Amino acid sequence: MDSITIRAGRKEDMSQIYDMIKQLAEFEKMADQVKISTETLISDGFGSNPAFATFVACPATDVNKIVGYALYYPCYSTWVGKSVFLEDLFVLPEHRKGGVGKKLFLAVAKLAHESSKRMDFHVLSWNPAKDFYKALGCVNLTQEEDWNVYRLHNEDLAEVIKDLI
Amino acid sequence: MDSITIRAGRKEDMSQIYDMIKQLAEFEKMADQVKISTETLISDGFGSNPAFATFVACPATDVNKIVGYALYYPCYSTWVGKSVFLEDLFVLPEHRKGGVGKKLFLAVAKLAHESSKRMDFHVLSWNPAKDFYKALGCVNLTQEEDWNVYRLHNEDLAEVIKDLI
Repeated sequence: MDSITIRAGRKEDMSQIYDMIKQLAEFEKMADQVKISTETLISDGFGSNPAFATFVACPATDVNKIVGYALYYPCYSTWVGKSVFLEDLFVLPEHRKGGVGKKLFLAVAKLAHESSKRMDFHVLSWNPAKDFYKALGCVNLTQEEDWNVYRLHNEDLAEVIKDLI
Repeated sequence: MDSITIRAGRKEDMSQIYDMIKQLAEFEKMADQVKISTETLISDGFGSNPAFATFVACPATDVNKIVGYALYYPCYSTWVGKSVFLEDLFVLPEHRKGGVGKKLFLAVAKLAHESSKRMDFHVLSWNPAKDFYKALGCVNLTQEEDWNVYRLHNEDLAEVIKDLI
């Protein structure tokens, strides 16, 4: 396997990242929930106040070809302060089992350690990557502390606030 | 009950919010996890690049006294784009059952609807507030889609990246 380089994602990578976002959502059996576009990723991630940042994994022989990505953003804990949320971690199927996912995870973990106090993320309970995260010392807070993830979708946001507008 | 005003939180509210952060953590049976201070809240929430923002609930007769707060920050979804994460929602016990929590929740929901695509948060599975969230149209994604919350704590972050440094 080629040697892999990890670098910060750039505007021109967003098209390849968008393709991988769709592949990740397909793996998660939720492809119909992807409403974003390459253009939105570029405008949200590279303006004056970027909403997220990425690391990408590339073969050392072709640093424009992306074989995996990690997308993260700063979050906040009222218990410990500044934290990092890892939104996505994905490696193309043909590049798995070679440590690429771990390299991407550690790039975000290093940044989280330098700039904040912890790193959070969400994992599907049936995702085999749970073993990978456990081996790295991550805690499943849904199992350990009974935390559940809640969401108010866009259409329900509109409904709930309609009497306020 | 006094009429309640909802307004954006200010630096000088952080001391009262810190007291309520501790009360919320006690209710959640995790008071030992609170490592933050009023000073950290002020520096993180009111610099040039604030890590969070708040709404506070005050009696209309005394807008410096806080009886509840909501603390939130911008987050990001690779499926829908810009989103809002509601980190904390808390009302002092003696001011509950009067709609204060709903007013705070709706203030964040309105902002989420105006600026983004959805609103996420975490709830303990045994918290009676689950019924309140369900009535507002929120979905429990741990039950509905099997999402689990994962965390890498500060000490484990240091351990996992020690070979990189």
